[in-house]
Amino acid sequence: MTDAYLNFVNSPFGARLASSLGLPKPEVLRRYRADQPEFEGLIAVGAGPQPRMLEALAGMIARTGMTGVAHESAGLWIPLAQRHGVMTGRFEPVASGSSQGRMSALLFDASGIEDVTQFDTLYAFFHDALRSLDKCGRMVVFGRPPEACATTRQWTAQRALEGFTRSLGKEARRGITSNLIHVAPGAEALTEATLRFFLSPRSAYVSGQVVRIDAVTHALPVFDWKQPLAGRRALVTGAARGIGASIAGVLAAEGARVIGVDIPSAKEALDQTMRALNGTALAFDIAAPETPAQLAAALDENGVDIVVHNAGVTKDKTLAKMTEAAWRSVIDINLAAQERIDDALLEAGTLRHGGRIIGVSSISGIAGNAGQSNYATSKAGVIGRVQSMAPHLRERHITINAVAPGFIETQMTAKIPFAIREAGRRMNSMSQGGQPVDVAQTIAWLAHPGSAGITGQVVRVCGQSLIGA
Amino acid sequence: MTDAYLNFVNSPFGARLASSLGLPKPEVLRRYRADQPEFEGLIAVGAGPQPRMLEALAGMIARTGMTGVAHESAGLWIPLAQRHGVMTGRFEPVASGSSQGRMSALLFDASGIEDVTQFDTLYAFFHDALRSLDKCGRMVVFGRPPEACATTRQWTAQRALEGFTRSLGKEARRGITSNLIHVAPGAEALTEATLRFFLSPRSAYVSGQVVRIDAVTHALPVFDWKQPLAGRRALVTGAARGIGASIAGVLAAEGARVIGVDIPSAKEALDQTMRALNGTALAFDIAAPETPAQLAAALDENGVDIVVHNAGVTKDKTLAKMTEAAWRSVIDINLAAQERIDDALLEAGTLRHGGRIIGVSSISGIAGNAGQSNYATSKAGVIGRVQSMAPHLRERHITINAVAPGFIETQMTAKIPFAIREAGRRMNSMSQGGQPVDVAQTIAWLAHPGSAGITGQVVRVCGQSLIGA
Repeated sequence: MTDAYLNFVNSPFGARLASSLGLPKPEVLRRYRADQPEFEGLIAVGAGPQPRMLEALAGMIARTGMTGVAHESAGLWIPLAQRHGVMTGRFEPVASGSSQGRMSALLFDASGIEDVTQFDTLYAFFHDALRSLDKCGRMVVFGRPPEACATTRQWTAQRALEGFTRSLGKEARRGITSNLIHVAPGAEALTEATLRFFLSPRSAYVSGQVVRIDAVTHALPVFDWKQPLAGRRALVTGAARGIGASIAGVLAAEGARVIGVDIPSAKEALDQTMRALNGTALAFDIAAPETPAQLAAALDENGVDIVVHNAGVTKDKTLAKMTEAAWRSVIDINLAAQERIDDALLEAGTLRHGGRIIGVSSISGIAGNAGQSNYATSKAGVIGRVQSMAPHLRERHITINAVAPGFIETQMTAKIPFAIREAGRRMNSMSQGGQPVDVAQTIAWLAHPGSAGITGQVVRVCGQSLIGA
Repeated sequence: MTDAYLNFVNSPFGARLASSLGLPKPEVLRRYRADQPEFEGLIAVGAGPQPRMLEALAGMIARTGMTGVAHESAGLWIPLAQRHGVMTGRFEPVASGSSQGRMSALLFDASGIEDVTQFDTLYAFFHDALRSLDKCGRMVVFGRPPEACATTRQWTAQRALEGFTRSLGKEARRGITSNLIHVAPGAEALTEATLRFFLSPRSAYVSGQVVRIDAVTHALPVFDWKQPLAGRRALVTGAARGIGASIAGVLAAEGARVIGVDIPSAKEALDQTMRALNGTALAFDIAAPETPAQLAAALDENGVDIVVHNAGVTKDKTLAKMTEAAWRSVIDINLAAQERIDDALLEAGTLRHGGRIIGVSSISGIAGNAGQSNYATSKAGVIGRVQSMAPHLRERHITINAVAPGFIETQMTAKIPFAIREAGRRMNSMSQGGQPVDVAQTIAWLAHPGSAGITGQVVRVCGQSLIGA
């Protein structure tokens, strides 16, 4: 659960030693704290030809209170920013070594790029501004979903941005994240929750991702940015400890009333976790055949708005040595139990209109993993659930998404042998493992009432792990 | 270009040393040789409930001359095999340490699986048979494209197979590959070229992939399995040396008449490569504005059936240090030039009905890479081209696909510093780099007249590299 190397190289002596030996120096990531400002400092704004997002972005940045400074590629920015009341000015590169006037974020509007011959301003903006980006800074590129593009040239150019943002994430280091947001035409106003997440320290361990925001036909419910989940009820499985307890904590901090589920043998820890959050503890074995109906009955009166399928187990062995029981139970607990529970909650209408389902997949589910064929199968199945169910849930305004954690510092990863653990920790753009709260914050963003345009997607929480497929 | 470690640990002394020190021992991969049988030995056949592919597979296996032995999960196999004239029998596990009766391949028909509760035979088959699989053996699972499934449960189960096959590829080692073929309903008879590729030593470095075979409405042209490209004309860019020369060589060996293109400064090497193949050398700079028209004119009389966009350059630097010229030229040569050339060939009808376009992407285009933002952008754009153009080319029966090489032993990779080169080489399920011929064979499969059901796809040639997104 602790990363001794990270602590060492960020001590005065360790930093000097690492520097003289040329060792990697992972940055201590800035994470969200309720007692510190979530948004501050300068955002450099750049744009390609015919930027379609700038107007919407100006309004959103105004509401964060940040100052937007215009790169020469974004000539339209200053009048737009003034109209929206954003503090603004011209982007000035920061002198090397100076910490004055550094950027908190670099934002580029690529939504109007229609051809790969129009990439010059993309290059110019990041070339000019990268060195001025502060540690733990943010890079966000806005583009269009390739498959929604009118021409093959535009599709190609928009798809190419993926290679660009991922490369920048791998170059930038210093705790900086780089992500690409595909905004469907008509979904511009739905991007605010997502822009805030990616600008905020809440997204500390989310990098190299591509998120699509679709247009929706219904109006969003009214919510408060400070307590977006107020009045919502959230069911979290596996909530007694670890990542599940962290999810419960973050959702509660955002205003949700949490109903935590865990197996009867973890009842004491569950009760304790839920008491601290003023939540409700339900001791159920999610894999038991009677659980879905009992759960729906327990929730019935008030229903539920957010379902987080976090409970899961590993029973690792190579397939040749794996027992049938180990195969079956991992598939059943990690995947089939979710199917049965969602069926029960959806049939009875317990999961309410406008609800959210969030599954927990894994990098192993994306890339496969030796010794985890059962686990990887179950976690790839979670991706299948999200993709298959999203269209069916649209008419109820319910979204379904998954997070795919990479190496997260937990009791489970603490048991991995040292050399493998060190490799897993370092093989990502942050050179460190993530924390349970990084997964929890990502889930809270997907659970947000403002995330109505995001469905059927998988977001990795992996610090841009090298590992993938 | 040589892997000294691979050679060493496969020498008698090196093998003993590696074994006593517990060092990895990459297998010398079996590759296709015209003077050796392409298909031989035993295939163990397993199946889930209601297998829809077995009948088609029996016919295909009969034509390879291999012997299919039935696992208990595939009760239907023996009568089907007998009807198709396949040598057959019951699967018997091989005693540990024995090399007698080992399987060349494990084939599982998962096409009828409708729910994750039906995975028991999948587990049982591979659990029972994995240890009987010979080195450089093949695992192939047949499923349905998830997005074509009638129910969310079926979609989930079919999607889950991806995590399974990828995990098996990472477990199996010993030069064994593991791939998943999604066969759309009605496309069963179109799978033969793909089954042959994945069973053959031609696919030595292709593992962890998912390939989709769509149904097509037109009849396939008549072809000879021994010379499938006979009578076809193939344009290969960057053909003078390296991977391009290997592509030209393999296409020629399959019967194609090759037209090789390379820059004027490489004319001598190009002439020599083409002379040896009885091909035609065209010295053109693909990025020159006049080239597309000149190329179309040079091909005009007979047209062309296969276009392989192999030419590409790297100009690596972190973006902050990259010149605008380095940015522009990589995008232009690797991506925009392909767009211009295809436009010219398609407008003039030079690329004939039933043709094939194959782009060369890269793992860097999928995952991004530090110091390669220009290259990764161009190679991600190649994926966008393939995805965007496929639907438009369907009515002409033209397919467009890309290969994405991982670490391939070339003059380019020989220049990478030792430690980084070693990491790149070993971080895959084969524990070694691929050869140019591995890329070339994969392209030849996509160029095959029998691959009419494959379009809009990207196939990695990376030995199941860990690296991805």
